[in-house]
Amino acid sequence: MNQDTICAIATAQGGAIGTIRISGSKAIEIANRIFVPARSGKQLSDQKAYTLTFGRIYDGAEIVDEVLVSLFRSPHSYTGEDSVEIACHGSSYILQQVMQLLIRNGCRMAQPGEYTQRAFLNGKMDLSQAEAVADLIASSSAATHRLAMSQMRGGFSKELTDLRTKLLNFTSMIELELDFSEEDVEFADREALRQLANGIENVISRLVQSFSVGNAIKNGVPVAIIGETNAGKSTLLNVLLNEEKAIVSDIHGTTRDVIEDTVNIGGVTFRFIDTAGIRETDDTIETLGIERTFQKLDQAEIVIWMLDAVDGTSQISQLSDKILPRCEDKHLLLVFNKADLVTPSEQVLPSPLFPNFPHFPEDRVNAIFISAKQRQHTEDLQQLLVNAAHLPTVTQNDVIVTNVRHYEALTHALQAIQRVQEGLAVNISGDFLSQDIRECIFHISDIAGEVTNDMVLQNIFLHFCIGK
Amino acid sequence: MNQDTICAIATAQGGAIGTIRISGSKAIEIANRIFVPARSGKQLSDQKAYTLTFGRIYDGAEIVDEVLVSLFRSPHSYTGEDSVEIACHGSSYILQQVMQLLIRNGCRMAQPGEYTQRAFLNGKMDLSQAEAVADLIASSSAATHRLAMSQMRGGFSKELTDLRTKLLNFTSMIELELDFSEEDVEFADREALRQLANGIENVISRLVQSFSVGNAIKNGVPVAIIGETNAGKSTLLNVLLNEEKAIVSDIHGTTRDVIEDTVNIGGVTFRFIDTAGIRETDDTIETLGIERTFQKLDQAEIVIWMLDAVDGTSQISQLSDKILPRCEDKHLLLVFNKADLVTPSEQVLPSPLFPNFPHFPEDRVNAIFISAKQRQHTEDLQQLLVNAAHLPTVTQNDVIVTNVRHYEALTHALQAIQRVQEGLAVNISGDFLSQDIRECIFHISDIAGEVTNDMVLQNIFLHFCIGK
Repeated sequence: MNQDTICAIATAQGGAIGTIRISGSKAIEIANRIFVPARSGKQLSDQKAYTLTFGRIYDGAEIVDEVLVSLFRSPHSYTGEDSVEIACHGSSYILQQVMQLLIRNGCRMAQPGEYTQRAFLNGKMDLSQAEAVADLIASSSAATHRLAMSQMRGGFSKELTDLRTKLLNFTSMIELELDFSEEDVEFADREALRQLANGIENVISRLVQSFSVGNAIKNGVPVAIIGETNAGKSTLLNVLLNEEKAIVSDIHGTTRDVIEDTVNIGGVTFRFIDTAGIRETDDTIETLGIERTFQKLDQAEIVIWMLDAVDGTSQISQLSDKILPRCEDKHLLLVFNKADLVTPSEQVLPSPLFPNFPHFPEDRVNAIFISAKQRQHTEDLQQLLVNAAHLPTVTQNDVIVTNVRHYEALTHALQAIQRVQEGLAVNISGDFLSQDIRECIFHISDIAGEVTNDMVLQNIFLHFCIGK
Repeated sequence: MNQDTICAIATAQGGAIGTIRISGSKAIEIANRIFVPARSGKQLSDQKAYTLTFGRIYDGAEIVDEVLVSLFRSPHSYTGEDSVEIACHGSSYILQQVMQLLIRNGCRMAQPGEYTQRAFLNGKMDLSQAEAVADLIASSSAATHRLAMSQMRGGFSKELTDLRTKLLNFTSMIELELDFSEEDVEFADREALRQLANGIENVISRLVQSFSVGNAIKNGVPVAIIGETNAGKSTLLNVLLNEEKAIVSDIHGTTRDVIEDTVNIGGVTFRFIDTAGIRETDDTIETLGIERTFQKLDQAEIVIWMLDAVDGTSQISQLSDKILPRCEDKHLLLVFNKADLVTPSEQVLPSPLFPNFPHFPEDRVNAIFISAKQRQHTEDLQQLLVNAAHLPTVTQNDVIVTNVRHYEALTHALQAIQRVQEGLAVNISGDFLSQDIRECIFHISDIAGEVTNDMVLQNIFLHFCIGK
């Protein structure tokens, strides 16, 4: 497959300029066949690498376009292969004509992400750097841009490569011991291994922990909105999203599907989870929805519990045993909605807030009276949300994991290294140690793509855009 | 104004790659300030023209992106000025960051078409070629692409420049005669001038005539659909356009606005004109609509006259004195609609077709029975339309006028040269001749932009996209 010369339109439709990328062993030969430089003399294939040549693309006698052609020679290109980029006038007709001409002359249309995949396969970048390219293109804020840039520059994969090399040295020592097992020698210094394992555990657990920040920045801080049916959850979501995405109705239990949407409030991206209302019900579909509500609750970092300003206190006592045990590690916002239906003097918080849960950490709870429908105090609620998110400011030097695949590999590596630590503590035999060290190495290598299988690779690059 | 260094995003939003163009005397200096080449050593400003340099854009200590930078030095660039193109990852966040950085460092955001305007002002192309750039980017079919490409390659402006030079020579001779008017000499050979004027008249009238073909290719063959109210004009238009653009209703006279839309049928672009129904009416608005119907009729090349299959013959005799005199130079399609309401044996054409107009050219008339509502025989009607359009196949070597501004300038030039011809025929004095020749030269020069005023120029380039 990697033998093919591929081509793709790398720019979006509709600009002044459109760029077509060609990469592969025949890239220059094929481009040379359809391109005539404006100045007679040198052909495109005679040009040096890293040069631009102005001229015309011909389809037989017909001029397709006047273009600028960039030339790159292997290995000094994005993919590491011979590459040509053709900058045309941005007419989709012209771009299609050039693509057809390239394909008639032996190119194949590129798959999504195939250029970056080739860059990875040709050793121009490791897999985590390749994955960062897609994040960089998708970056839409300073924070997501910084994370992607840090990862593309090598990020944690450099740090992991060092640790991996050290682990590899140790495991070969231990495996050498196994060859001499009858002689009961210890080539690998157990104390040094203990220190290394501690160091690695430290680094990896820091990376694993960084994922919640990375994920919050990349995908938004997860906020679950829960409460009884008809508490105004959908109305609040609409206010927060500034649109009419969720179906709002006065009929109890109308919101059955879990709808997610993100919005940027005060520089922080929030990912809102609208959920089915909580109530006793015989409706199977709705019961499923309520179950999902509780699942979503587990994923949330902030929980907005919508209560009725009129009878909120009784709702709290009815539902707190279901909700509070799931919220202890989260930030809880008690939102008393429909505050326009009660007098200001009635807008009083129950005290204590949770009679049945006297030890619930109150520094993680805020309460507010609002009217979602009348948009009263909804801006105050937004401010509470921003405060509750408390995301750290990241820089390009921060090493933060944002990718689920990396997070999973790191979690497995962490478990393996913790088994190594435990094994060392109880002095288990070298062959068991070696097995856990090998597993840790395997998962660390997976991040850089050294042991990643083809299916996983394909899946990663399929999510790229065409032309990248 | 031309002193500013300008920058713009030249690609559409959303691709893998985004390109930013910088042009002006400080282009290289400004780009150099924010760009650090990957290989240490040469700065961007040390690079040769027509080279590519890989490196990073920095905003202070922060990396904005890894980019490829193309360098052009005056006069060998699109604009004729020093120019730099930065190919970034196609994130709109990154592109905006780079733009802001450029602007902070002294660039100005470019106006629409400003690059091409500078190319024109710096003598890289004449005005008609510059105008072709916008047509090329907008080209959406082989035919529009060929026309734009022909014009961009010089097209008729080369031919006109030659004629203009010859005219200039003559007019200076004639003006020399005026200086010696008391001596009654003739420096300018009247017979040679007569031949030149004939030649020019020939060339220009050929170009003026080509406009109807050029305009039909570029904007579509104009087709007017006329007929009595409720004849099914809107329904037919919907069938032809495959959409529900016109309001269709059973109330007489619902279509008051002239709606235009284009559709490609069998490779030919048609521009349909739906018109108000023709009937006696007291409604002022509707009377205006009917007046416009007749105006539009004059612009059409093909007229579809919708008749009722039931009483079409009587409609013809009622309206033919209003319609036929306006259709003698057009192709007329008599469409008997609602054919599903009559039996096949009743689907008979009246003979003669137009009793009151026995000399109407019947080779320019077709008749067909259809049902627009039931979509019966509407495909046959489409075939009749394609046959009636009879557009010639154009090649890139054909010289065809597509631009209204050029058409108007050529029409004025034609009138002036015809006055020269008439003047020569009756031997008018040199000063009158000279005046008409000067006027002809003026209008010819206008096409290449040599005498075009700033307001006209601005208006031309405002219709370009940004970044071109």
